[in-house]
Amino acid sequence: MTSNLQKILVAQGGGPTAVINQSLVGVVLEARRHKGIDRVYGARHGVRGIVDEDFVDLTQETSHNLELVAATPGSALGSTRDKPDLAYCERIFRVLRAHGIGHFFYIGGNDSSDTVRIVSQQAQAAGYPLRCIHIPKTIDNDLVGNDHTPGFPSAARFVAQAFAGANLDNAALPGVYLAVVMGRHAGFLTAASALGKKFPDDGPHLIYLPERTFVLEQFLADVQAMQRRHGRCVIAVSEGIHDASGAPILAQLAQDLERDAHGNVQLSGTGALADLLCAEIKQKLGIQRVRGDTFGYLQRSFIGCVSDVDQREAREVGEKAVQFAMWGDRDGSVAIQRTGYYSADYSLLPLDAVAGQTRVMDDAFISPSGTDVTDAFRLYLRPLLGSGLSDAYRLRPAPVAKVLHSGG
Amino acid sequence: MTSNLQKILVAQGGGPTAVINQSLVGVVLEARRHKGIDRVYGARHGVRGIVDEDFVDLTQETSHNLELVAATPGSALGSTRDKPDLAYCERIFRVLRAHGIGHFFYIGGNDSSDTVRIVSQQAQAAGYPLRCIHIPKTIDNDLVGNDHTPGFPSAARFVAQAFAGANLDNAALPGVYLAVVMGRHAGFLTAASALGKKFPDDGPHLIYLPERTFVLEQFLADVQAMQRRHGRCVIAVSEGIHDASGAPILAQLAQDLERDAHGNVQLSGTGALADLLCAEIKQKLGIQRVRGDTFGYLQRSFIGCVSDVDQREAREVGEKAVQFAMWGDRDGSVAIQRTGYYSADYSLLPLDAVAGQTRVMDDAFISPSGTDVTDAFRLYLRPLLGSGLSDAYRLRPAPVAKVLHSGG
Repeated sequence: MTSNLQKILVAQGGGPTAVINQSLVGVVLEARRHKGIDRVYGARHGVRGIVDEDFVDLTQETSHNLELVAATPGSALGSTRDKPDLAYCERIFRVLRAHGIGHFFYIGGNDSSDTVRIVSQQAQAAGYPLRCIHIPKTIDNDLVGNDHTPGFPSAARFVAQAFAGANLDNAALPGVYLAVVMGRHAGFLTAASALGKKFPDDGPHLIYLPERTFVLEQFLADVQAMQRRHGRCVIAVSEGIHDASGAPILAQLAQDLERDAHGNVQLSGTGALADLLCAEIKQKLGIQRVRGDTFGYLQRSFIGCVSDVDQREAREVGEKAVQFAMWGDRDGSVAIQRTGYYSADYSLLPLDAVAGQTRVMDDAFISPSGTDVTDAFRLYLRPLLGSGLSDAYRLRPAPVAKVLHSGG
Repeated sequence: MTSNLQKILVAQGGGPTAVINQSLVGVVLEARRHKGIDRVYGARHGVRGIVDEDFVDLTQETSHNLELVAATPGSALGSTRDKPDLAYCERIFRVLRAHGIGHFFYIGGNDSSDTVRIVSQQAQAAGYPLRCIHIPKTIDNDLVGNDHTPGFPSAARFVAQAFAGANLDNAALPGVYLAVVMGRHAGFLTAASALGKKFPDDGPHLIYLPERTFVLEQFLADVQAMQRRHGRCVIAVSEGIHDASGAPILAQLAQDLERDAHGNVQLSGTGALADLLCAEIKQKLGIQRVRGDTFGYLQRSFIGCVSDVDQREAREVGEKAVQFAMWGDRDGSVAIQRTGYYSADYSLLPLDAVAGQTRVMDDAFISPSGTDVTDAFRLYLRPLLGSGLSDAYRLRPAPVAKVLHSGG
């Protein structure tokens, strides 16, 4: 049964990305051309804005400004980390019913898909005709049922470009360079660092993913071996690396771990993990020049680093969400499937098939050593990064014969 | 007296930048068209490569590949932090004389200009006809006698874009966001964060520069005031902030300060300062969501973020260096002067006028509060950032009347 109500509501949840506003604008512009819809509301700061009745009328925004907002990173409506429970959902229903809203679109990641699932169940239980569609977004690329998720390609592009540049810097002033990349459970974004490599001796020389157990002694042996081979070493480390028990390596350092409402440990917004690992390298290996960076919020917020493929697909998942809602007859989560190299199509998955689950990297994407990616991963990621990627060139060897030191 | 020798040598010193290879290629291509020069050598890893006789023959490189290298960040010849003393310079002379080199071009910052000055003096003292030209490069923008220095505009563009994005992220998920920016003594790069602002309530809301004394209590009061006004606060902090005695704030935290051969404390490559300041904000102000980033090496090495104005000028200082050397009759440091809004010209300053000195921000560039920049600074910096900067747009307010909460 398709709702006869005349209003739709769209909201954004979780961490902003470079392209989440494309999905928002995809929903708004597509909804505005449907005769059955006379109002498009946006909730400010996700589900929080629903319970607070903090709505804006997107029907009154110009198409021109919507296009400009679409090209702007961040969440234009604002976001939230709230995860609704039963009582929270009751409040959501009261508001939706009071405003005559029949379609709810929530753009977000794992936690947001779970929110949509709960709201959908509550709506059914309450007999309220609400169509609930989850629209995927996450830089971690950890939604199941998707070839990849909007937001990830642009963040991956940032990580690849960052390592391409860091490798050049490190080649000029050799030493150990280590950078910590976002990704709590899935290593896709850290693995994207490999796409910054061009020449065989380029970094990153070592990549540490949450899909593999991190053993400090092995890490130090790996770094020492690369340092001896190349006279330098560039390392990509996922913020989610953990020991055999699953405990975060960072937990060995931090005494007060901040947890959010979802029970997640705060891994971002601190340079502690990079500093800890650098200190270990200095102390245990006696390497003098060791530098650590933490890409932090730059990798999801930096303006001016976006994949055109990601932009297009983020727009399309928003458009498709409205089409599925208006022409279909079920709730669900929009998913991206790869149909060619490179082409994508969209489907609607059951919310139960997506919500509350976490996708990690296939074994086929990780080299047997556990510290590199495979060609399968490079082929998987490359088209997503989009066009116009910067390339690195080097001088060709043309050594000049020594005059004074010619004897050696 | 212009040297009759037929070879020139070029080298790169100090931290790499996004455009230092433009200057290298400017020297090489300009030198190759002069009839008086039959070989263009490059020293690998700066002055270290000279004493090691580690030269490459750039006369044998294709123009096509040189152009591609010019567009690549990093130091294509490699760099060094070595600062030659008397004995080091004696070794340099022996090598230069043995190879028949008559012109020495060194691309670098403060420390490199001092190296050129020492080498020039030693050459004169030894009666060796060596033309020594310093070519400016520094992301810190701290060379005296220059309107600005190549490398700074591209790094400033990175910082401005990073804060433009961080501000959008922070607006979506409000809290305190603090990022530490490079700049040991000069605040230009940190101040560039202000160019990421568009709307009056955009961050950065507070900017802390090494040109002003940092007082922790005042800092906390500033943050609290901004948090109350905007419900959030974005802060730019220079790595070089110091107390009234000149001691780095970081020194209050770090126990083992690493110093390089120039006696500089290592301020980059660690997230300690951001983490310290965030901890203070959490503890003293009781604000829950506080995130700190350290831009680290990204701001000087990120590939794909470059100012076209910076590229052009970096190329020109290299070209002009060769022209000054061939057609002039004195050693010196190439300097950029502003001649219009926006246009630049180049002159050759005496090495003594540049070497060993540090330029900091004019008082006219810093607001009376000490935590913001003036319009004079915005006008100064804007044309340097180049074309094609990303812009941020937002939804216009169109609130929907509350139904349930209409009573308040």
